[in-house]
Amino acid sequence: MAEGATQRRSRITPEREAELYEAVLDLLREVGYDALTMDAVAARTKSSKATLYRQWGGKADLVVKALRHGKPGRLDEIDTGSLRGDLHALVALEDDCTMERNSALMRGVAMAMHHNEDLRQAFREQVIDPEMGGFRQVMRRAVDRGEIREDCPALEFTLHMMVGGFATRALLDDQPPTRAFLISYIDAVVLPALGVSPH
Amino acid sequence: MAEGATQRRSRITPEREAELYEAVLDLLREVGYDALTMDAVAARTKSSKATLYRQWGGKADLVVKALRHGKPGRLDEIDTGSLRGDLHALVALEDDCTMERNSALMRGVAMAMHHNEDLRQAFREQVIDPEMGGFRQVMRRAVDRGEIREDCPALEFTLHMMVGGFATRALLDDQPPTRAFLISYIDAVVLPALGVSPH
Repeated sequence: MAEGATQRRSRITPEREAELYEAVLDLLREVGYDALTMDAVAARTKSSKATLYRQWGGKADLVVKALRHGKPGRLDEIDTGSLRGDLHALVALEDDCTMERNSALMRGVAMAMHHNEDLRQAFREQVIDPEMGGFRQVMRRAVDRGEIREDCPALEFTLHMMVGGFATRALLDDQPPTRAFLISYIDAVVLPALGVSPH
Repeated sequence: MAEGATQRRSRITPEREAELYEAVLDLLREVGYDALTMDAVAARTKSSKATLYRQWGGKADLVVKALRHGKPGRLDEIDTGSLRGDLHALVALEDDCTMERNSALMRGVAMAMHHNEDLRQAFREQVIDPEMGGFRQVMRRAVDRGEIREDCPALEFTLHMMVGGFATRALLDDQPPTRAFLISYIDAVVLPALGVSPH
């Protein structure tokens, strides 16, 4: 991992990498995953396709790395001392405007995953699995503190509950998820399901 | 409504209508919403486009009616005497094979809704709003029986929880939602969040 990072840095600076990812996210918003081409990324960022392929291997990997790069903060750096504090801090990583932009982006990508096995696999390996790892730490600490019972059946569904609240807001209410919505949802659904008082 | 139904029947039999809806769902599975054309529906069902437009007005309405037609049973006909019984009965309306087919179909349509305002509106009016109405009845009875407290904060998120479990199963676990999964999820998440014992 460290070696790979060194190799990457020898070819491309972190600033340049961030610029590329921003351009990929812009393109993704403009045309969606299916219509996004490596040619368009190369043209937009004034890079050669050879460089893009050497650096990322392909479109799925490039897009997923760009999505991961665009995520603010890291779940596994949150440790407020209570589960409620941790989940609220997680929601506060993004302001409402960023959340709305990312929510639209993620819905588009989630739908593209539906028929792109390579995108689905890259997303699972590079976004879902690490997020699940971060979640497990948050939950582990809540269990260790005695906030959640070790055998609480809702434990294995924590991520389903969180992602479900985020994903269904737009579909069911025709409104983007906001911090206020997600905090109400955490207090009304996630904590009670885990047997944790929301007060 | 009754008059509209009579007018419809004067033009097209219920059997023919069911046949048309099946053809629309088949086409939707084959090519997706965006690539589905009224021409293709007319060709596949040997109808005239004029008939299709007279009957349904447009693609969004036709597709949403077909989706609604394909849904087995009705939520508001379920009344087992307990909330757990009602939610389990809801899950049992579809067998796993149907659920897997419908889950794939719904993900495709949810993606198309993302950039088709007319589809989103038709889906909301003809599927989500009636489902929410059915849900409210189920919840109302549970409150009236004293199973759920009137002021339970999770009440307004019931549909988010249910749809969230269904929708995130494929995304997070790369597995289609099954009855067994949904029953575990209802018992572990939905009922405890509502303050109802899952036993």
